[in-house]
Amino acid sequence: MTAELHLDELLEFLKEDVPAGDVTSDAVIPDISCNAIIRAEHDGIIAGAAEAAALFTHFGVSVTAEKNDGDNVKNGDVILRLTGKAKVILLVERTALNIMGRMSGIATATHALAGVVRSVSPTCRVAGTRKTCPGFRRFDKKAVVIGGGDPHRMNLSDGVLIKDNHLAVVPLETAIRAARSHSRYKKIEVEVESSADAIRAAETGADIIMLDNMTPAQAKETVSTLEKCGLRDRVTLEISGGINGTTLRDYAACGVDVISMGALTHTVKNFSLSLEILPAQTGRT
Amino acid sequence: MTAELHLDELLEFLKEDVPAGDVTSDAVIPDISCNAIIRAEHDGIIAGAAEAAALFTHFGVSVTAEKNDGDNVKNGDVILRLTGKAKVILLVERTALNIMGRMSGIATATHALAGVVRSVSPTCRVAGTRKTCPGFRRFDKKAVVIGGGDPHRMNLSDGVLIKDNHLAVVPLETAIRAARSHSRYKKIEVEVESSADAIRAAETGADIIMLDNMTPAQAKETVSTLEKCGLRDRVTLEISGGINGTTLRDYAACGVDVISMGALTHTVKNFSLSLEILPAQTGRT
Amino acid sequence: MTAELHLDELLEFLKEDVPAGDVTSDAVIPDISCNAIIRAEHDGIIAGAAEAAALFTHFGVSVTAEKNDGDNVKNGDVILRLTGKAKVILLVERTALNIMGRMSGIATATHALAGVVRSVSPTCRVAGTRKTCPGFRRFDKKAVVIGGGDPHRMNLSDGVLIKDNHLAVVPLETAIRAARSHSRYKKIEVEVESSADAIRAAETGADIIMLDNMTPAQAKETVSTLEKCGLRDRVTLEISGGINGTTLRDYAACGVDVISMGALTHTVKNFSLSLEILPAQTGRT
Amino acid sequence: MTAELHLDELLEFLKEDVPAGDVTSDAVIPDISCNAIIRAEHDGIIAGAAEAAALFTHFGVSVTAEKNDGDNVKNGDVILRLTGKAKVILLVERTALNIMGRMSGIATATHALAGVVRSVSPTCRVAGTRKTCPGFRRFDKKAVVIGGGDPHRMNLSDGVLIKDNHLAVVPLETAIRAARSHSRYKKIEVEVESSADAIRAAETGADIIMLDNMTPAQAKETVSTLEKCGLRDRVTLEISGGINGTTLRDYAACGVDVISMGALTHTVKNFSLSLEILPAQTGRT
Amino acid sequence: MTAELHLDELLEFLKEDVPAGDVTSDAVIPDISCNAIIRAEHDGIIAGAAEAAALFTHFGVSVTAEKNDGDNVKNGDVILRLTGKAKVILLVERTALNIMGRMSGIATATHALAGVVRSVSPTCRVAGTRKTCPGFRRFDKKAVVIGGGDPHRMNLSDGVLIKDNHLAVVPLETAIRAARSHSRYKKIEVEVESSADAIRAAETGADIIMLDNMTPAQAKETVSTLEKCGLRDRVTLEISGGINGTTLRDYAACGVDVISMGALTHTVKNFSLSLEILPAQTGRT
Amino acid sequence: MTAELHLDELLEFLKEDVPAGDVTSDAVIPDISCNAIIRAEHDGIIAGAAEAAALFTHFGVSVTAEKNDGDNVKNGDVILRLTGKAKVILLVERTALNIMGRMSGIATATHALAGVVRSVSPTCRVAGTRKTCPGFRRFDKKAVVIGGGDPHRMNLSDGVLIKDNHLAVVPLETAIRAARSHSRYKKIEVEVESSADAIRAAETGADIIMLDNMTPAQAKETVSTLEKCGLRDRVTLEISGGINGTTLRDYAACGVDVISMGALTHTVKNFSLSLEILPAQTGRT
Repeated sequence: MTAELHLDELLEFLKEDVPAGDVTSDAVIPDISCNAIIRAEHDGIIAGAAEAAALFTHFGVSVTAEKNDGDNVKNGDVILRLTGKAKVILLVERTALNIMGRMSGIATATHALAGVVRSVSPTCRVAGTRKTCPGFRRFDKKAVVIGGGDPHRMNLSDGVLIKDNHLAVVPLETAIRAARSHSRYKKIEVEVESSADAIRAAETGADIIMLDNMTPAQAKETVSTLEKCGLRDRVTLEISGGINGTTLRDYAACGVDVISMGALTHTVKNFSLSLEILPAQTGRT
Repeated sequence: MTAELHLDELLEFLKEDVPAGDVTSDAVIPDISCNAIIRAEHDGIIAGAAEAAALFTHFGVSVTAEKNDGDNVKNGDVILRLTGKAKVILLVERTALNIMGRMSGIATATHALAGVVRSVSPTCRVAGTRKTCPGFRRFDKKAVVIGGGDPHRMNLSDGVLIKDNHLAVVPLETAIRAARSHSRYKKIEVEVESSADAIRAAETGADIIMLDNMTPAQAKETVSTLEKCGLRDRVTLEISGGINGTTLRDYAACGVDVISMGALTHTVKNFSLSLEILPAQTGRT
Repeated sequence: MTAELHLDELLEFLKEDVPAGDVTSDAVIPDISCNAIIRAEHDGIIAGAAEAAALFTHFGVSVTAEKNDGDNVKNGDVILRLTGKAKVILLVERTALNIMGRMSGIATATHALAGVVRSVSPTCRVAGTRKTCPGFRRFDKKAVVIGGGDPHRMNLSDGVLIKDNHLAVVPLETAIRAARSHSRYKKIEVEVESSADAIRAAETGADIIMLDNMTPAQAKETVSTLEKCGLRDRVTLEISGGINGTTLRDYAACGVDVISMGALTHTVKNFSLSLEILPAQTGRT
Repeated sequence: MTAELHLDELLEFLKEDVPAGDVTSDAVIPDISCNAIIRAEHDGIIAGAAEAAALFTHFGVSVTAEKNDGDNVKNGDVILRLTGKAKVILLVERTALNIMGRMSGIATATHALAGVVRSVSPTCRVAGTRKTCPGFRRFDKKAVVIGGGDPHRMNLSDGVLIKDNHLAVVPLETAIRAARSHSRYKKIEVEVESSADAIRAAETGADIIMLDNMTPAQAKETVSTLEKCGLRDRVTLEISGGINGTTLRDYAACGVDVISMGALTHTVKNFSLSLEILPAQTGRT
Repeated sequence: MTAELHLDELLEFLKEDVPAGDVTSDAVIPDISCNAIIRAEHDGIIAGAAEAAALFTHFGVSVTAEKNDGDNVKNGDVILRLTGKAKVILLVERTALNIMGRMSGIATATHALAGVVRSVSPTCRVAGTRKTCPGFRRFDKKAVVIGGGDPHRMNLSDGVLIKDNHLAVVPLETAIRAARSHSRYKKIEVEVESSADAIRAAETGADIIMLDNMTPAQAKETVSTLEKCGLRDRVTLEISGGINGTTLRDYAACGVDVISMGALTHTVKNFSLSLEILPAQTGRT
Repeated sequence: MTAELHLDELLEFLKEDVPAGDVTSDAVIPDISCNAIIRAEHDGIIAGAAEAAALFTHFGVSVTAEKNDGDNVKNGDVILRLTGKAKVILLVERTALNIMGRMSGIATATHALAGVVRSVSPTCRVAGTRKTCPGFRRFDKKAVVIGGGDPHRMNLSDGVLIKDNHLAVVPLETAIRAARSHSRYKKIEVEVESSADAIRAAETGADIIMLDNMTPAQAKETVSTLEKCGLRDRVTLEISGGINGTTLRDYAACGVDVISMGALTHTVKNFSLSLEILPAQTGRT
């Protein structure tokens, strides 16, 4: 996803913060140009710099990227250098920092968790869920990818995932067959809570099986049962539910392909960044 | 803010999750009605139930609220009871839970912190900032209010706040006077980093003074200096920056009126909720 | 996809036809109610009746559906019966008929072609492409499904399809591996023009192989080569390009799983329908 | 209509095809530039090239037009030459081709039919109707004009056309007088099914009379009756309904001014075009 | 134009006044119902009552119309009676009054001027122009019609009007012929400044001739010249420019068909209306 | 507020005037460039020139501003010089003039009234209200500021104003206290009709008191009562209702801080401007 393609959404974010002008700058700031920098106040992975740059650029601020999305930065590193009208820089400041702060927070956490998982199981991946902030889904998902995670499906139109609430209404095999007969172009994922159901799902043609709320031991047992039945290689195995920093290694060791975690996007630690207008002598342009 | 007034934004959140239909339900779920419940999986303060109810109602699901926004709930409590088409309930499920999960998380944390502050200083309040999730500002702010916090200004159009970056460009007294001559209808807030600047701000006519990144001791000293100069009662005193669970009591004891915290909305712990479709015998309608 | 979920798009279609009121009805039609019917003027499969009904209903016209989407109708059959304000029925008339006319045209053609294919190869399906009318994609695709076709991917965000233009820039194996490492949740389709490339694609892990612009003989040869290599069952085989009514049977006999045809949505024969206001004696309400 | 004025609609068409990024290119295509061409695969009249160029240009692709809207092209002719980021060209490709394919199809058919009519009656014109694809009206109408047709009214706000369904509710003379007393600035068109009604309409002050579903003989008789009454020159005569390639010459010979045909826009034959990324040696920029 | 069809625009007007909730009512007003009335504070013609009613109704307030659009009201007359939530009535109050105040002001002035004109020349009409308030065109024009005026063309897409700035670029006859060859479905209006040009325009086929900035004497002379040439009945004659309350009678006596006046919508005198919440004893519901 | 930030609204205004192309220019005007000027036809204060320039610039017309917003101009002064495509200049002409005409009319009247008030009471200001044209609020308010007025609150989300209709439902002291406990960041204004209520409001903590519909004598008496009680300096005093050109001096002499007048934006006298395409010899570019 390029930031330019979604400039209209970025402008909506700006309008949310500036519905009727910036009353402070309009009253207080003269019509001068200045230089400014955006600086990291943590170590971590930067995300959202492309979006911030697109917003500043759209309003005529020239932007030099010292760091790009995906870069590993240190506390104090300059991310973007800005030159333009002081009023415009102040106008965009908070929106840009809010976007970068959340996206970098997600990318940083994803990167750390993906590293833990990879150290245990080199091919196992961390994935996001649809538990994103409403109105910010696209950017939450992009941040997961920048952090090295798998985005999982973007939305309800994007993939078939038959969950417990579907299975409360229709039997597992019926559901899988109905989904398969609808289209050949989407993978079919099914959520199961037992190894027996995992086998039924694999036999009926599920492409992905999500082991829901299993302990590491239950997950491991399910994997080996599928292997015994010769079904393991036919399916992608995902585990989800109740996974945290403490239990992550155990789950990574279960033999699954993907570990999905709602917390990647629903419980985000902001990545702190600051924008600083530089003193005028530096500000000559 | 009534949820009905902003139904169009709630529908945008839904479209973010369902841009082109729910491929799973469309393929798998028959045209039946069912009952369902939304249940809390934590203790805390509920927020966003009005928004969730407005969305379900818009699509013809009948909603009974067992708990309302602002209610203190226990893990396991039923919040909403739903009756309607299974396809529609599944369509709205994730969007509704994402809204409620984030808003209740904010309300719960705000409520807890406001309680701590009040126990130290009965008139001192906790306030939000503009560090919200882009696209969700309105709802983040509403959740702060439901949790007992002060919403602070909504956006750059909503209040004058002269910050360090403004003062890098224009002197403090000039800035305050320019803001005063612009309009009599908005309070003027100034960010200061020393008690000397606090006095200058108060003398020049600031309505609110934000003590930025001060230690509790520095804040206390600034308050008493203002008192000695007879300026304390003319202004609202806000403190901001570097405040966390550990230091909150100390700051609350400084004699300020408001403690604003970006973390209320930029580092949110999701409040877990689940939607469960009830077995058919209960589901007769 | 329910018509209600996308009411806003239907209203946009109406506004395209009525940007500033219906000058004829506003000037000419008194404030009376009437009955009206929408009637088929061909034999075929109805699609878009749900959309038409949603539009009329939104403006207070009561609608009785004599036929529903997917029904096989005869020339002269009544599809919808309407009762409401004459001005409103005339306001919505053309928009409703344009939607139904195009969607029923697509559904009718899809149904006929799918029948031909099924008669030759019971499991082989006809599929749409992205060659839809801009602004009407969602409805074109829905009509393909109502006609018994496979919708194929909805858009560029919805599935991976590595085409000749991608392969002009990056080698086939590299492309497939890059796509696989991006996410486990989407099928990977590759377009090939030779059986050798089909084998490379299958071996590298493509889920779907599109045989592009092959003759029936070439397609058959490719299928049998894949069978010999034991790769046939690992992949879905699609054929596309240069298929028309004359050659369809031959392609259906090649052993592929899906035949995709741009003409389903880019060269649509309108399904003619008429709306008739009934004489007043019938119109008593 | 300039394409730039309606860029927002073109961007909506693009978003319909790329709601959340191009997953294939994002995963597969490196950040390189390339050259590409769009080539005709039929003979005919080009339309939509301005729209395609506006879209590519908006995203930074430089465009050289070898052929322009309205040009008569041959199978194999290059229409547009493109230079820019490979990802961007692939992003816009299908949307641009869908716009050009439909518009050129309409322009080509209109041009052919207008030529037939002109060969029989030099001043008689072919006109479109409101039977366009919902969401694409503006572009369908523009294509009719590029093909040499009369666009007829754009929408219900754009002209008064009293049809059979209006006349089912209000008498012909009453309707015409009501329309005339509403405004002096719009022509008043009335649909009639007999020469007697044509005379009544002309006498009451209709500006345009549409002869609906008449045979060529009936139409010719109506024209001569109007001539005898001295009313022929007061009105524009349009004929509509049941006109096809076979009967077009006969209708053109009737002495009417305009022949309107729904098929111009409701039953469109796509004009095939292809986009080809050129090999890198050619691609030096 | 029905108010319901354009509810989305009315809601936009409301959002302009309530972007983020009504902070006063949210803080101050309890959740009670009440009765209220909207009362005229002038004599005149009411317009916009349908729009006000549609807004209140949309938010669940029940509305009884004592007066309707087009009614002649006296100072003190009750226009609408409202029953509903106090918060909702206060939310919609100002937006509803602003719409009704401007529209009734336009309708009242149009009605008065149309009466003056009619008293001098029974068939001569007063017409609006495109000099409306940006964002409110549709409603300004509707108010002109309610006041008894001719709306003239709605916008640049709605009618051909060749003005002095066009004639600075292209000769009069060329312009008229180009417009005629474009479409048979729109009237062609030409602005002229001399009787000689009026004759040229009529001879070349203009449908409407606008006499621009002529004195009454010049206009009268032009009318009689056209009569002498036998061209008067072929065209609608409009006069425009420099017409005010003092000169209106003289212009009405010139023999033209339409007098258009920018002041109808660019210099509007607000029609004062007040909304009053009734004391609680009346407010029982 | 910068015009660029709100370009999307300006484009909406243009689309209101050009929903489907400029049929006159499209048919009549060749593809040539020209020079043009926008000239004042009154003396007064210019406003909206930035908006006009932003629109022309967006479509590639180069603009030289001879006068800027806030400048005092004379009848005949050139405001903007334009060079660009004739079609584009004609496309934007009316929208640009409508924006400038209304905004300059408001700025001119505000400036004159503010001058009168200042001559009587140097610190007393004229302020706008929310009685603006729906859809044009932002620009009406900006024009008030350009004319030297105080914008007052922008909308219901922007400030607390407890009016008679609130006080019909809740007692004055209760209302003020509820507003104060909601947030410390907004001024609280209360509307009163007697000096007794003014004192109650000031004592309970209102920041601004609006004296509603008082005579100058009553207002003067209220001011002096507040002074006697030592409350005058605690509050901003606004007077509103029934103020016109005749009575303005008397009100200005009452000792209040602000005089708000609905007529500034609800009863606007258009500021006449004309756009003239210059003869070609001047037009060489």
